[in-house]
Amino acid sequence: MDYSTNDSKSTSKNKVVAVVGGGLVGALNACYFAKRGFQVEVFESREDIRQAKIVKGRSINLALSHRGRQALKQVGMEDTIVSKGIPMHSRMIHSLNGTQSPIPYGKKGQYILSVDRANLNKELLSAAETYSTTKLNFAHKLLNWSTETGAMTFLRAAGAKEEIQADLIVGCDGAFSAIRKQFLRQSRFNFSQTYIPHGYLELTMPPINGEFAMKPNYLHIWPRNTFMMIALPNLDKTFTCTLFMPFDEFENVTTGDQVIEFFQKYFPDAIPLIGADALKRDYFHLPAQAMVSVKCSPYHLSDKCVLMGDAAHAVVPFYGQGMNAGFEDCLVFNEIMDQLNEDFSAVLPEYTRVRVPDDHAIADLAMYNYVEMRSHVNSKWFLFRKYVDNFLHMIMPRTVIPLYTMVTFTRTRYHEAVKRWHWQDKQGQKKGIDSNQRDTALF
Amino acid sequence: MDYSTNDSKSTSKNKVVAVVGGGLVGALNACYFAKRGFQVEVFESREDIRQAKIVKGRSINLALSHRGRQALKQVGMEDTIVSKGIPMHSRMIHSLNGTQSPIPYGKKGQYILSVDRANLNKELLSAAETYSTTKLNFAHKLLNWSTETGAMTFLRAAGAKEEIQADLIVGCDGAFSAIRKQFLRQSRFNFSQTYIPHGYLELTMPPINGEFAMKPNYLHIWPRNTFMMIALPNLDKTFTCTLFMPFDEFENVTTGDQVIEFFQKYFPDAIPLIGADALKRDYFHLPAQAMVSVKCSPYHLSDKCVLMGDAAHAVVPFYGQGMNAGFEDCLVFNEIMDQLNEDFSAVLPEYTRVRVPDDHAIADLAMYNYVEMRSHVNSKWFLFRKYVDNFLHMIMPRTVIPLYTMVTFTRTRYHEAVKRWHWQDKQGQKKGIDSNQRDTALF
Repeated sequence: MDYSTNDSKSTSKNKVVAVVGGGLVGALNACYFAKRGFQVEVFESREDIRQAKIVKGRSINLALSHRGRQALKQVGMEDTIVSKGIPMHSRMIHSLNGTQSPIPYGKKGQYILSVDRANLNKELLSAAETYSTTKLNFAHKLLNWSTETGAMTFLRAAGAKEEIQADLIVGCDGAFSAIRKQFLRQSRFNFSQTYIPHGYLELTMPPINGEFAMKPNYLHIWPRNTFMMIALPNLDKTFTCTLFMPFDEFENVTTGDQVIEFFQKYFPDAIPLIGADALKRDYFHLPAQAMVSVKCSPYHLSDKCVLMGDAAHAVVPFYGQGMNAGFEDCLVFNEIMDQLNEDFSAVLPEYTRVRVPDDHAIADLAMYNYVEMRSHVNSKWFLFRKYVDNFLHMIMPRTVIPLYTMVTFTRTRYHEAVKRWHWQDKQGQKKGIDSNQRDTALF
Repeated sequence: MDYSTNDSKSTSKNKVVAVVGGGLVGALNACYFAKRGFQVEVFESREDIRQAKIVKGRSINLALSHRGRQALKQVGMEDTIVSKGIPMHSRMIHSLNGTQSPIPYGKKGQYILSVDRANLNKELLSAAETYSTTKLNFAHKLLNWSTETGAMTFLRAAGAKEEIQADLIVGCDGAFSAIRKQFLRQSRFNFSQTYIPHGYLELTMPPINGEFAMKPNYLHIWPRNTFMMIALPNLDKTFTCTLFMPFDEFENVTTGDQVIEFFQKYFPDAIPLIGADALKRDYFHLPAQAMVSVKCSPYHLSDKCVLMGDAAHAVVPFYGQGMNAGFEDCLVFNEIMDQLNEDFSAVLPEYTRVRVPDDHAIADLAMYNYVEMRSHVNSKWFLFRKYVDNFLHMIMPRTVIPLYTMVTFTRTRYHEAVKRWHWQDKQGQKKGIDSNQRDTALF
């Protein structure tokens, strides 16, 4: 190794980037840094999920949309992932009486993709490993690290310790980030974690006679005011159903018979599809999971460390943007690396400056949708919303772009989309549309 | 000890309450629990300030108002503390041209008191010690504690460890609470810390010919948009001046000459009063201090631990309620102890239920005033605000009570005061008063 030039593109080959967390954003980031020629070390506290049995406790499927796809494309992964996703062109609203009504996500040809979290993670880890400069270290639990030197200590399974020295530490270790804990000790670090009163629970709807039990190319939604269920299709022709409900209400359902009674009342059409026996059993498989919204600022610590994905901004799942925002983090960071010639001391503050307002905007939007949902979302509301969107679009076709479209099908910066939305809302008000009919869209 | 009865008033004598933190709220709490007959152990990480030299880094004086006084009264401390405070009946607004204009805090006879933080702390510690059941433990740094058993481990100066077992742990250990760290590890604990872009710096204005350099019975304010200085009188006839300014701006002033230049431009009347030489020197005595707003929920952990004061809700200082809210915490807890017969398993959740909305309301109000101040507060604004208040009060004398009055001179619950304020604002709008003229009041 004798790089006599100062060109950082060459010196990057000597620099070690430690990516903490081998989940979705960590694995994608490994690809990005490896592609630039850095020595990439990924540290994941769990075992390699490619060898592991079923991973429990995290949502099984996710909705991939434009931002996530663009981020995958940059490292040549878009086609591979899209080919294993199931397009969802519309929401399918299930009324209490069993009526199903589709509401398209956008214009013709605009759709989101149901993707399998575990498979996506595996593909990204394998992609990262194709770079000779990348090393994946599993079962490495971060014990300590220095904000000054970048020295890191990991605990191995047998109690042994391992040390490495990193030029840049990229914290992609999720909503309960160990990396972020050091940020909390710094002066003037802003941080919030907000749990919502709802929990969620996943159920499986099996195939019927080898076919999907419901129409596959839809995100199925059962809106029932404070309760809601959604279902996303999987490649194996099952659906994963997710039930959202206040924790208080979960506590009221404690026996199999109560589960059936509850479903009879709110989701009667789902009982035969999930199967009464499976429902009674699987409902109690895991306790209801909590959902947290995390915001913080800054995202960097000197020129040594940067946070991305859930570690920087966990969002509640009511805008379908958690993974997409995390993937776009990698893309935005990559763009700034280009602009500022890989100079970490300039790139990191710029990343904070550019990305914080956008991540905060999507976190707020997701929370806003949660609050909206909690207060008045039923089937009629959903169908009415469609009417309002169409009406606005009809009277101002060139100026009104639905917020959902900007968020889901463009790379308009999140905070710009929100600004524009407020502006559009004002225009709507001038035309006599009251603010209860605001442009929002769940999932 | 043979208490054969189940009366908790008697059994309280066997129970150990560990108060963590011997600052203002911790010391007051010690009095409250001792008065009820509990065995009180106060643990403070620093030395006894009654023996210590000057305590640095915390604001020297504070404004005591109704809520704080009521809390002191309940343990017989009001008169002692009030006798050492200096009444401030009005704000005194200093214009750039040197004009001084008073704005009363309330009606005739309504005033706030400038009190010395160190003296108040000393008095409260000594008051706590008058109870035979209270033990003050200084230089005890909390190492660890169990949320299940109440077992606590403290580190002593020489490296020795000390263990105790508490029935109730009361976390009064300030904005960076060590007790609160355990809460963060619990599921569904909501937490936020927000630093504001302003810092503060304290300066002393000495007496002139043995007398106060300015009129003593006022809180002096120099509002200069994003800069602001205030001054509170002390018993030794000095004033403590506090300069609030964005950190960016602090960084622009690095030499003694620049300090003078800066004061010439914004606070010319203060230069001869502080003294040019002292100003040049003292300005650099300590770096500008950060201000943080902390909110969290719940305030309790099972029946074992509860947070009060800054540990539960640090507020920015722009409503003068930080200490008053902390003292009122003790009073509210005491009221609930009466209502629920000292049953911790009922008292702690009830305290969270009742107190969280109020503490969040005052934290938000203080932040709201900060944002208002930052955007447009100058001398004219202050004087105009007075006009608006008077006008509203004139047209609706029985229904409009200024927000500042409710917060400062009553025990109206903070969140009720805010609700009422919004209502009044709506009434004002109906009478043609626009929302830029909202009822707010700094300090």
